[in-house]
Amino acid sequence: MEGAISRAAAEELDAADPLAEFRGRFVVTDPELIYLDGNSLGRLPAATSERLREVVEEGWGGGLVRSWQDWIDWGSRLGDRLAEHVLGARPGEVVISDSTSVNLYKLAGAALDAAPGRNTVLIDAEDFPTNRYVLQGLADQRGLRLRRLASDLDGGLDLDVLRSALDRDVALVVLSSVSYRSGALSDMATVNELARAVGAKVLWDLSHAAGAVPLDLTATGAELAVGCTYKYLNGGPGSPAFLYVRRELQTVLRQPVWGWYGQREQFRMGPDYDPVPGIERFLVSTPPLLSLAAIEPALDLVEQAGVARIRAKGLLLSRLADDLAQAWLTPLGFRAASPRTPERRGSHVALYHPDAWQICQALAEDAKVVCDYRVPDRLRIGPSPLYTRFTEVWDALDRVRRIAAEPTYDSRPADLARVT
Amino acid sequence: MEGAISRAAAEELDAADPLAEFRGRFVVTDPELIYLDGNSLGRLPAATSERLREVVEEGWGGGLVRSWQDWIDWGSRLGDRLAEHVLGARPGEVVISDSTSVNLYKLAGAALDAAPGRNTVLIDAEDFPTNRYVLQGLADQRGLRLRRLASDLDGGLDLDVLRSALDRDVALVVLSSVSYRSGALSDMATVNELARAVGAKVLWDLSHAAGAVPLDLTATGAELAVGCTYKYLNGGPGSPAFLYVRRELQTVLRQPVWGWYGQREQFRMGPDYDPVPGIERFLVSTPPLLSLAAIEPALDLVEQAGVARIRAKGLLLSRLADDLAQAWLTPLGFRAASPRTPERRGSHVALYHPDAWQICQALAEDAKVVCDYRVPDRLRIGPSPLYTRFTEVWDALDRVRRIAAEPTYDSRPADLARVT
Repeated sequence: MEGAISRAAAEELDAADPLAEFRGRFVVTDPELIYLDGNSLGRLPAATSERLREVVEEGWGGGLVRSWQDWIDWGSRLGDRLAEHVLGARPGEVVISDSTSVNLYKLAGAALDAAPGRNTVLIDAEDFPTNRYVLQGLADQRGLRLRRLASDLDGGLDLDVLRSALDRDVALVVLSSVSYRSGALSDMATVNELARAVGAKVLWDLSHAAGAVPLDLTATGAELAVGCTYKYLNGGPGSPAFLYVRRELQTVLRQPVWGWYGQREQFRMGPDYDPVPGIERFLVSTPPLLSLAAIEPALDLVEQAGVARIRAKGLLLSRLADDLAQAWLTPLGFRAASPRTPERRGSHVALYHPDAWQICQALAEDAKVVCDYRVPDRLRIGPSPLYTRFTEVWDALDRVRRIAAEPTYDSRPADLARVT
Repeated sequence: MEGAISRAAAEELDAADPLAEFRGRFVVTDPELIYLDGNSLGRLPAATSERLREVVEEGWGGGLVRSWQDWIDWGSRLGDRLAEHVLGARPGEVVISDSTSVNLYKLAGAALDAAPGRNTVLIDAEDFPTNRYVLQGLADQRGLRLRRLASDLDGGLDLDVLRSALDRDVALVVLSSVSYRSGALSDMATVNELARAVGAKVLWDLSHAAGAVPLDLTATGAELAVGCTYKYLNGGPGSPAFLYVRRELQTVLRQPVWGWYGQREQFRMGPDYDPVPGIERFLVSTPPLLSLAAIEPALDLVEQAGVARIRAKGLLLSRLADDLAQAWLTPLGFRAASPRTPERRGSHVALYHPDAWQICQALAEDAKVVCDYRVPDRLRIGPSPLYTRFTEVWDALDRVRRIAAEPTYDSRPADLARVT
């Protein structure tokens, strides 16, 4: 066990944690449960339920259709807050709308339509499935070539592979800034620069990065991005997604879904589509208001904590998980599935083990630890700095160690209907 | 005033109303307010707030990511209920997902891709703007011809115009079964038959029909439909929309947004898009769960009342509005903007008046009547049978009469930022 931090040391980290008080601002119904899946669905902020009650009872019930006077710009208003506090973007560059997949489709479609004569799309062969499928569909529809870039050994973007794939036939590169599988963090500035040198656009998926790592879309020269609000941003199950289009690019692009929320003088309902010049041209239609409303109290917490402090704690949390895994789990057949350097990771770490599915089930059913499994052999551990304690990470890894050391689980194959 | 029904007679209609008790199952915070805009945003069902509290506090707060085991099929489960009780469709033909506009895009795109060699799309020149814009975008992207069909004198579909426009170059016809402007009801069976005779598909927008008029998608030979759940279905602001694809057509079509919720063995996350054979192939991604959850208690009410009884009362309500408008308002410069025969209308009626905007504002500000305005000169009156009383319609029309008879409003042009 040499090199493994003691539980007392983990307790000291909790005692010194400047974000410790934020845990109390989330609903924790079962304090014994260790929740390490905030990278999939963030916890419920304590203020959200009351806020929703107000929107439902006062806004909808009392105000009725008149409340749209207030509601109609929430996607833009929350987008501006996200731009300033989370994404490092400027006002009028971010809006909340639709799902990450639909936003990816809209922005990728717009970018491809703006690059006639270029016939190649680059994606990460290991990217989140919907990203790969959406681009496959767009490429198929337009007769483009889809190239899948292999990852490096850490499960991150291999810059040499990208460099050799980038040429003047590339219209678009779609990448995640934090890999959903490995947690590997991409160097956005370098990628944007490499792409710009050949006139290609980069569309970033920030789903696993937003609210976990500092982002500076302006300074890194990002042009297009999408991302989800229910992971580290804690917006609630399926809360609507964000999209970012750099200001200078907005009027150059026209997205493929010509909805009335993008229309100039929307309520004039004119005969032809004539989109507004700003970020709202990327909107389609009436947002799911209750799910949208839940984003605001969640964003309050992220803003108050600040992404810099969240990241500082996230580095320590994932380092603790990685250190313990090295000391305790490597001898038990685990292998790191994430970069080992904390600065090269987002907030989650992944481990390979041939029985990853069984271990993940045993953790949930017998050990009160919720983390997640990804096919075929990965366990993902996603501490969320706003509410995860260091001792929880210590205890969770300790329970993984016990389960793997004396396995009592059977060896049935993974039940993919039970994965979430 | 000859021919106008008395208020006492309206009271008798209320006393005899078999759906009267349903009003008590909605939140009515201000009993003095007459709400005639249920065609835009339906009222809040009394059970919804508690149901949402459960989903938020127990599902999200307590269950965390594990609740997706339950949530993941809600779009299909609610879709099946809608199919059976509202749409006259079969199990596995309806799913709730995305917005009406995005669903329209998906199904229209799928239909166009399945009809190579056909180069014409027919739309109603007066259809809801997003329907026209979405099709304009799809036609533009594919180089198709978009033909806009002029309405008949009642603001409804002119079957002669449709007949003469339908030929073997038509890939797709997009129509609303109830016009959002005039309330005119289309003869779906005849339209479907005319289109089928030339091999064209019809994509129906049922937004203003679902929950207001009986629909029988199976018997009328419908193949494709979309619609919204927040009007007569009372699902809440921006609640996700439904889509219908006739069973026989499902595997023939492939929609353009290839998201992972349509993927076979979704959590296997395989390399290539390979959609399931059922209605779920038209899904894209994680639904906005809170907005989705609010549909269920609303659907309970529609099912318990039954669409047949809702329609029976709707016919009486809109007839009352129309009769009073004829008797009282025609002499004051109003003119019917809807079919005069109740059976040819949905649940709302529209009136032309040059000062429609000012009258709509005065009704809301001075007379406690909420209805709505549509450019340039229409007042829409949308009683919703589940909660609107006959005396409310009588009182509202009486107040319109008073305002129009002695106008005190100024004549500023319509403020389109204040329309919803």
